Amino acid sequence: MTTQYSVTSGETVNLEKMVQSLRDFLAIPSISALKEHRADITKAAEWVVDRLKQVGARNVNIQATLGCPIVTGSIVTSPESPTVLVYGHYDVQPVDPIDEWISPPFEPTQRDDNLFARGATDMKAQLVAFLTAVEALNQAGSLPVNLLFLVEGEEEIGSPNLVGYLESVQETLSCDFCLNLDAGILAPDLPSIMIGLRGLAYFELWLQGPAADLHSGKFGGAIENPAMVLAELLAGMRDKQGQVTLPGFYDNVRPLTPADREEMARLPQTDEWWLKSSGAKALRQHDDWTATERATARPTLEINGLLSGFTGEGSKTVLPARSMAKISMRLVPDQSPEEMRRHLEEYLAVNVPVTTSYTLAEMHGARPAVLARDFYAVQAAKEALKLIWGKEPVFTRDGGTVPVVGVIKEMLGVETLLLGFGLPDDNPHGPNEKQHLPTLYKGVQTYMEFLNRIPFFHTKST
Amino acid sequence: MTTQYSVTSGETVNLEKMVQSLRDFLAIPSISALKEHRADITKAAEWVVDRLKQVGARNVNIQATLGCPIVTGSIVTSPESPTVLVYGHYDVQPVDPIDEWISPPFEPTQRDDNLFARGATDMKAQLVAFLTAVEALNQAGSLPVNLLFLVEGEEEIGSPNLVGYLESVQETLSCDFCLNLDAGILAPDLPSIMIGLRGLAYFELWLQGPAADLHSGKFGGAIENPAMVLAELLAGMRDKQGQVTLPGFYDNVRPLTPADREEMARLPQTDEWWLKSSGAKALRQHDDWTATERATARPTLEINGLLSGFTGEGSKTVLPARSMAKISMRLVPDQSPEEMRRHLEEYLAVNVPVTTSYTLAEMHGARPAVLARDFYAVQAAKEALKLIWGKEPVFTRDGGTVPVVGVIKEMLGVETLLLGFGLPDDNPHGPNEKQHLPTLYKGVQTYMEFLNRIPFFHTKST
Repeated sequence: MTTQYSVTSGETVNLEKMVQSLRDFLAIPSISALKEHRADITKAAEWVVDRLKQVGARNVNIQATLGCPIVTGSIVTSPESPTVLVYGHYDVQPVDPIDEWISPPFEPTQRDDNLFARGATDMKAQLVAFLTAVEALNQAGSLPVNLLFLVEGEEEIGSPNLVGYLESVQETLSCDFCLNLDAGILAPDLPSIMIGLRGLAYFELWLQGPAADLHSGKFGGAIENPAMVLAELLAGMRDKQGQVTLPGFYDNVRPLTPADREEMARLPQTDEWWLKSSGAKALRQHDDWTATERATARPTLEINGLLSGFTGEGSKTVLPARSMAKISMRLVPDQSPEEMRRHLEEYLAVNVPVTTSYTLAEMHGARPAVLARDFYAVQAAKEALKLIWGKEPVFTRDGGTVPVVGVIKEMLGVETLLLGFGLPDDNPHGPNEKQHLPTLYKGVQTYMEFLNRIPFFHTKST
Repeated sequence: MTTQYSVTSGETVNLEKMVQSLRDFLAIPSISALKEHRADITKAAEWVVDRLKQVGARNVNIQATLGCPIVTGSIVTSPESPTVLVYGHYDVQPVDPIDEWISPPFEPTQRDDNLFARGATDMKAQLVAFLTAVEALNQAGSLPVNLLFLVEGEEEIGSPNLVGYLESVQETLSCDFCLNLDAGILAPDLPSIMIGLRGLAYFELWLQGPAADLHSGKFGGAIENPAMVLAELLAGMRDKQGQVTLPGFYDNVRPLTPADREEMARLPQTDEWWLKSSGAKALRQHDDWTATERATARPTLEINGLLSGFTGEGSKTVLPARSMAKISMRLVPDQSPEEMRRHLEEYLAVNVPVTTSYTLAEMHGARPAVLARDFYAVQAAKEALKLIWGKEPVFTRDGGTVPVVGVIKEMLGVETLLLGFGLPDDNPHGPNEKQHLPTLYKGVQTYMEFLNRIPFFHTKST
């Protein structure tokens, strides 16, 4: 292993030391979902505190919340420099299924180029790599930006206390953009920047027909079946071409530009890739969009759950009293969850028959986020990746939603750049989670080059 | 209480003695669904054996099965007389919810005109009443028919061993029709004969999309959602007028005659009655059929169960791998379960998209049964009811299915007449099950008059 790298500005990092630091961090089973790991959560938060202090952060604090604490700190280099809010999390997912792990999840183990442990790629390695980059620059006195650290301990359980914390600091916390380290690239030889995330609007719809479950023989035909009404309502939400038919659904969809589409066409996600990764028999082939466009840059309406009547083994001749669907939309700019609720409510008001009553609950909402390619943080990241990888990075969009991006936009009014060095096969949330070390080493250098380039592109853009 | 009745042919019955006999029978908790009541099942079977012997039956036997035994016996009066297979069951439903019983379910308790106990109306009272009628006629030497008794102990768990038993005797058992005592009338002052039962074809449909549950953000749009496909397939099974659209579904439906419809229009099941009994907001109003016609004399397609994806509390953004629907059709003459399977398979073969695979399992099938009004057993029952109630009985149809009717038709080749004296509010299967005693007393007389009239109408019809 080459243990030392120099970057263009001259600083060096000790990679062996970094990996040892990562191993120590990974050995702490900081599972936020399980109450019995609360002491480990504290230990991991304290680990972050110590590390922040080592890299030169000031005002390092553990902010208590109703759940797991948030670690904060700052490095202020100059009031004139851009200020970056650095977001990360120190908590990890549970380890089930434990039997499928080749080495114990909290005994970090290197096999070939990968370091295996729960929380490796998601996201302790990213946090450690970034702090290593910051340390090198800061010790050399060459950190060209101000950094505000926000490292939470509840990302894996939906960040229930993040909004509350941000509310308490939003008047005093000022930054230029957020750097979210919880991210990855497409492949070891394919640097990429994720510029788009879809938003989310998630609903639970209940229909009620008769007062109680009825005998389908005695009442079937006379009394409406709310499971059938549900099927009709859901089926009526898209047409034969697979387009969503809720009135107004596409009204605010910002058209994809030819450049957007060309970029997506160059990504390695071919139809074959989609088939293989999903295990589906065939792809939907209903319009002119590619599978990648449909999964990342076009809005969707999905059924996430269905429940009605008798679902056990065998046959029970019940005419169900109720039926339920979980329905979610993935949103693209400039759609909003509020607008989706309105579209859905209007559709239901018109289409639910008089035989049936309904309730609609909104479970979750998040706005879509797409960064402009010429956003200065994107430009800085692009140049850094190009320098370290020796090739142009590609811009990607993810069809999913990173709620914290929307929360930070809403609470602090700034955009988020996601930059991290996980890989698609790193198995976050699954057994044998890992981090690819050669990619991480390049990541450290990329973070340094990225930080170095922020002032230039920031100045250029203002 | 008047303790003695005379019927037209001169025999008398002691009703006090009958009620005491019924109380003894009801005190046996012969719950077929619960293994711990197996000794009570044996006790109830032995009670039937003793009672059959008392009324004069010969060859009384307990036929062992893999489950609860079947009690058989016969009274042969003359080889020239018609032979009636008398079907009943001695088992009862479990008693849950036990807290809702006003008096203990196996301590028969009379309040006003009703005798409360589990198994009262369903169907120990009917069996006791019929045997009382037979006893009176047989002791007077005036029983005008041959009777073959078949009293099973597993009706409440779906008669799993009845077909096997009938197979073993079908070569030697010969009868003219089956009298099923497990029945009722519409109201104490409204005698009725149920001449129609709908058949049943029950299916379980599973759709498979991707190989495993996927993230609806990462894959939604590119990969088909099998819950949405299911909704579309189910919605496609009926049109806006509520008519079933499976090709050929109505081809074999025997049209209702004007007489059929007039008869149904005279029944007390008004639209108001249907609303009140179902607790629904409104009735389906999509065609020219009345609610009663739709629920008893027209075929239906119902969804009995729906399941897909995440159905717990909260929101999980899953693109489900599978979806399931339980689908059943209620059939009228001359539809058959086999034909329904064909229609459904043809529909699925055409409409399931290439993105999705499916499996269809047939769970249960039963043919519809409608008796001609001029069937001699129907005529005999009609005259008997008219005589005892002093008014014309109405003919009814039940939208449900009595599987044993189809089994007996298939195994023995004979029609079944249902004649019993339960009432709609007797709460079979529920807490505080009861039997209305004045109706039962009329029932004993009706059974006697009915038996007396069988030879006349039988001769007339042949």
